[in-house]
Parts: sequence; structure tokens; C-alpha cells
Amino acid sequence: MISLLTDFGTADYFVGAVKGAILSVNPQAVIADITHEIAPQDIETGAFTLLACYKTFPRGTVHMAVVDPGVGSTRRPIVVSANEQFFVGPDNGIFSYIYDREPSHRTFHATEEKYFLPSPSSTFHGRDIFAPVAAALSNGVTPEEIGPEIEDEVHLPDLLEPIRIIHTDRFGNCITNITRDLLKSDKGASLLINGETIRDFRNFYGEDSSTSPFAIWGSAGFLEISVNGGSAAKELRVKRGDKIIFTQRRKDAKEDAK
Amino acid sequence: MISLLTDFGTADYFVGAVKGAILSVNPQAVIADITHEIAPQDIETGAFTLLACYKTFPRGTVHMAVVDPGVGSTRRPIVVSANEQFFVGPDNGIFSYIYDREPSHRTFHATEEKYFLPSPSSTFHGRDIFAPVAAALSNGVTPEEIGPEIEDEVHLPDLLEPIRIIHTDRFGNCITNITRDLLKSDKGASLLINGETIRDFRNFYGEDSSTSPFAIWGSAGFLEISVNGGSAAKELRVKRGDKIIFTQRRKDAKEDAK
Amino acid sequence: MISLLTDFGTADYFVGAVKGAILSVNPQAVIADITHEIAPQDIETGAFTLLACYKTFPRGTVHMAVVDPGVGSTRRPIVVSANEQFFVGPDNGIFSYIYDREPSHRTFHATEEKYFLPSPSSTFHGRDIFAPVAAALSNGVTPEEIGPEIEDEVHLPDLLEPIRIIHTDRFGNCITNITRDLLKSDKGASLLINGETIRDFRNFYGEDSSTSPFAIWGSAGFLEISVNGGSAAKELRVKRGDKIIFTQRRKDAKEDAK
Repeated sequence: MISLLTDFGTADYFVGAVKGAILSVNPQAVIADITHEIAPQDIETGAFTLLACYKTFPRGTVHMAVVDPGVGSTRRPIVVSANEQFFVGPDNGIFSYIYDREPSHRTFHATEEKYFLPSPSSTFHGRDIFAPVAAALSNGVTPEEIGPEIEDEVHLPDLLEPIRIIHTDRFGNCITNITRDLLKSDKGASLLINGETIRDFRNFYGEDSSTSPFAIWGSAGFLEISVNGGSAAKELRVKRGDKIIFTQRRKDAKEDAK
Repeated sequence: MISLLTDFGTADYFVGAVKGAILSVNPQAVIADITHEIAPQDIETGAFTLLACYKTFPRGTVHMAVVDPGVGSTRRPIVVSANEQFFVGPDNGIFSYIYDREPSHRTFHATEEKYFLPSPSSTFHGRDIFAPVAAALSNGVTPEEIGPEIEDEVHLPDLLEPIRIIHTDRFGNCITNITRDLLKSDKGASLLINGETIRDFRNFYGEDSSTSPFAIWGSAGFLEISVNGGSAAKELRVKRGDKIIFTQRRKDAKEDAK
Repeated sequence: MISLLTDFGTADYFVGAVKGAILSVNPQAVIADITHEIAPQDIETGAFTLLACYKTFPRGTVHMAVVDPGVGSTRRPIVVSANEQFFVGPDNGIFSYIYDREPSHRTFHATEEKYFLPSPSSTFHGRDIFAPVAAALSNGVTPEEIGPEIEDEVHLPDLLEPIRIIHTDRFGNCITNITRDLLKSDKGASLLINGETIRDFRNFYGEDSSTSPFAIWGSAGFLEISVNGGSAAKELRVKRGDKIIFTQRRKDAKEDAK
């Protein structure tokens, strides 16, 4: 089983070329597209999207994630072993959030050219390096056979701070980086974003017919800001990276202290 | 075999999470994306799209259809058995047109939580309930094992009247809800829509090089309004729901009566 | 293994209907979407996209390519055998570039209706003819069984001249039809397009931090014009079909002549 996450879009030949390259190495591979619509070269969104769904896949899945502005340069192709799954892609931070969640991960520099296509191009490693390496892993080749272990992988800036919007989705939900570890109780909490204060916490979208923004625990494990039947991102004019001021009322803080 | 029809879009982690959840329950499942581009929360288009293609799939296919504005509320998750296939999704009318076409269908309320992911969220039943239930069905679990039969499923308004545009497609074809049962002969028929009268009936798009709108029997079994090499929807400024006045010439009606 | 390349888009029921029709004939078929986002009726882009990726697929792959403005007319449905693969689609030039690259290809007119769906429509041969024929080929039916060989297939205008832009991709790269056969050395070469002269040749995108347009050998085997971290198509206001004046400096030409 091989999942694909790229910024290739779906209009060009890129995705077809990758699938062909995989199936040429492992004709039995089951290929599952996660998305090819990561914005061009947006490594952070690629990393977040993978974080948000890798755990639903079964043991042994090979995740190929390619958002790769440095293709052809000296940035390394890598294989990560974590969560009894494999991750294949460029060493540019795209697996950062997997490293955070899976402290016992191991990372390998893919150097064994016999697992690449012959004469790989310097512009399309998705087809020439990552696809055949992913297919080799799905055939039972081990990361150790693909190259030496490394310890100095590239990391993105911290996902968990500062408190901010880390993603806006198709429905206009604004996903924050606030986790349940940070916000143990909704009581008395409030979020200030773009001048709007949000105190309403809901359990599901349609809980109330009001169209004001509210906070809700989202399916990726983070607190989200939503509007029922509308787009919170549009109404609040929120974009990724926008800071959130996040408070508990003094009274509750006191209560917590008792 | 599991088909997927959702309004999740293809840019977020939603589709990946659903595929992972299916493959975790049934690693042998063949997953076929129908579409993830139903407009957010547009149940009617979801229902039409499923209607237009379910019959091409083989016996035993499980169709998972999720357009689900009521996720987390009391709306029921259901399994429908019809046409020797299964349909899994929310009880909000998305299977209405299947009910109409398949009078011997049976509907079951999915209540057996052992077929759900543990601790399902209240915001993403596609991943937490519908995907594992669909995978269970593909593994041979029966609808009866998933929950009790119900008779009061939710239905959308009638697809067949009033006479109107029920869909506009990528090519700008305007799909009406006129069937061959209603219009037995093209002779002398005319359609009045947005002030334009259409009397030209064609057998295939390129039959005539004229760029005027014409009527044609479409591949979903409904009469469509098209423009050769252009978009009828744009030219006639038609959108879903627009009414059509549909007449047979009096002379023909008389002839019919003879 | 069946690949799909169409202009159906991914929002309608078309792709679902095709997949269902394939899986009804061959439930074991592995279906790989290349793209469904070819612009409506843009045969040339369909032909280019297929050219750019067919070789990565394994022997025995059936490529179904449907961009078909002439559906329902007298244009023939065909099967092409080339590169130990099969190609199924309309005889409108969509396989032209395969013919060029694979001189020993053979083309067959698909006439054996027993491999079609019963009573095919005149508007959706993708579902009614091409899908079941592709599935039959994947089941081991031979092209000879599907219809007689023909020699007068339809060809698009020459891909290799005049020198021009043949495609712009998602990243804004402008793909020319200049091959290494034409341009044996980058030294001293220059491209003039839309009044801009490009003399900079790079080996990979990030080789230089300058944001001027440069030329680079792309992954489809053609010279491309790119901008690092930007869109060459936007910056140069280039669209498909734009002519390129392509020169070698006289000095180099002289040197070549020595």
C-alpha cells in the first residue's frame, strides 16, 4: 500500500508518471491518493496534511510525500521509518510533524541508486527516485538497504507555537495549533483572532443555528474555528499563520488553582 | 469494491483519512473515487451524481456517499441495500433517488458501534463511521449485523417534478429531469427556458455545426440542453432549479390522439 | 492495469461511470487516474500528457484516453498496440505522438459490438465503448478480436515544428518542443520568446537564486523555460502555441564548423 501526497496538481502528467513508475516496480501496489493539491512548494501544508491522516493507514503503508522546491540540489532524498509505516520524500522538513509525534522514528538517506530509475533527471525526483524507492519498500526492501541512517534531518519551525492558525480547509474551518494538552477544559476559554473574540464552544457543527463563529475540537486533534453553514476563514478574514490570543478567564484560572 | 462520493474536496486530508480508515479494516478493498467535488453540503447534487452512475458498478459494490451538514447531530448513519449493492452514508436524503429507482431497497440504521472507529469524533463521520462500516460490508458483514431496519428514511423533494434543470455539468450541458417516459417522441416538442425556445433535437453533439442550443438525450437518461463546442449553461444563463416549460405542439397532440 | 486520461473533470458522474463500467467487465482491474483535467475537448494537451508519461507504465498497461468532441459521429473508436501496451480512445489524433515515437505501432478499428455495453449511447462512449473495450483488453482479449487493422489513423499537426510552446504546467513551466536531437549543446544557445531573450541554461531549478527566466531540460524530454519560485508562463505572458526563435551564436556555429 502506497499513499501519495504531492503538490503536482492533477492536470499534468506528473501524477500519471509517478503511478506508472510505482507500478513498474511493484505491479501489485495499491496506490491511494491523499492529495496532489498542496499549493506549489508549500512544505508546511504538506507536512500538516500528512500529520492529519497518516495514523488512519494500516501498518506497512508507504507514504510518498513530495513537495520539493529543492529538487536536483544537494537536499537529500530520505526514508523515514515510524509508526510501523514508511515515509519517502525530500529532506526539507515535510516529515517534521511525524518526527514530533513519533520519537522513535529512524531516518535514512536514500543513496542506493539501484533502487532509483536509471539516470534520474534533476527536475522530477518524484518519478525517478521517490516512486521507485517507495515501490521497493512496498516490495519488502528495508530502509537499511536503501541507505545509511542519519540523525540531522531538516525540521520545520515548531508546529505548536506560537499559537496560530495552521490550516484553513475547504469548508472554511480555521484549524489552530491548540491541542487538548494545552486546553484541558473549554470552560471560560476564549480566542481572540483578527479582533473577534470567540467564547462559544460546540460539540458539532449544527448544534446551534446561529451563524456566529464558534470553536470546536476538529478531527485532526486541534481546536478549530468554524461557522455553521459558512466559511469562518472568509468571515474572519483569517489566513494561515495568523496569531491567536488565547485566554482563560481569571475566575476559572482561580478555580483551577483551588 | 468501494466507491467514494463526497464533498470533501481533494486538497485536504479528508480523502486520505477515509482511504486509510477503509484500508485498515479491509486491506484488499478496491477503492474507486467517483468524486469529492460535490459543492460543500449540496446533498441534491450528491444524490443526482450517485443516481447517474451507480448502475455501471458491479454487484456487491459498496457506495459510500458523504455530504453531511448534520454530522454529529441526531441524523442517523444508514446502510441501504439495493440493486445487489450497498450504500453507506448519512440519512439526509442523499440516497433518495436510489430509493425511487429501487423500490425493493431496504434501509438499516447503523448502530453497532463495534463497526465504527473507537470514540468516533462528532465532526468527521466519513472517517470514523462510514468508512469502517463500508469496509465491513466489503468484508462480508451484512446490513442486518450493522443495525435495525428502518422505514422512515429521509427523502429529498421529488426529482421528477416540477420540470426543471437538475444539474449542469463540466461541459455546460444542462440536464433536465425530463425522461423518455414523459417525452416519448421528440417530434414537435419544445422547451422554453429563460425566454429561449428550443425545438432542435439532436442525436449527438456534433450532428450540426450550428452553435444554437439544442436538446439531446443524455447519458444519465435525462433530456439535456447543449451547445456544440460551447456551454449551454453559460449561453442560456441557466442554473440548477431553473424551471422549464415543456410543450408538444397541438397538432402533434391531436395526431397522438388519433 | 488500466490508466485513465480524459477531459471529464472530477466533479461529475463521468469518471465514476467509467470506473464502474471497467470494474463490471474486469473486477480485478487496477485503475490509475492520469488526469481528468484536460481542458474540455483539448485533444492536443491530451496527446502531450499521454506522451509524457506512457513509458513509465509497465508492459501490458491499457491506456484509455478520451477527449472526444466527435462522440456519436462517424469518428472511429480505435485500439492502438505500441510499446507492448494498448491505447484505447477516439480516432481524432489523441494518439498522434505515440504513433511518432512508436513506428511499429498497429491500429485497429474497434467494431466488435460484443465488447461494448449493450445499446451504447451517442454521447458517452467513454462509458459505453472505451471502458468495456479497455477492460476486455485487460482481460486478455486481443486487438485483432476487437476489429480490423487500419492504416489511415488521424494525426494532429506535427509536434516538433514549428518551434513553439507546447504546454504550460501547474508550476508555470513553459514546455517547448525543442529536443536534445535539435539542441545538442546548451553552449551559446538562446531562446527569444515574447521579446525576452533567454541565455541562461540550468541543471536544476534552484541552481541560482536569481528570479530571471532560464532554460532547463525538463522531465518529459523537452527544453522548458522556468522561473525559480515563480511562474515563467505568467512572467513571460506565454501560452501554448507561442512561437520561439531559437538561435546559436554565430561564433559557436563557426566553432561547430571547424
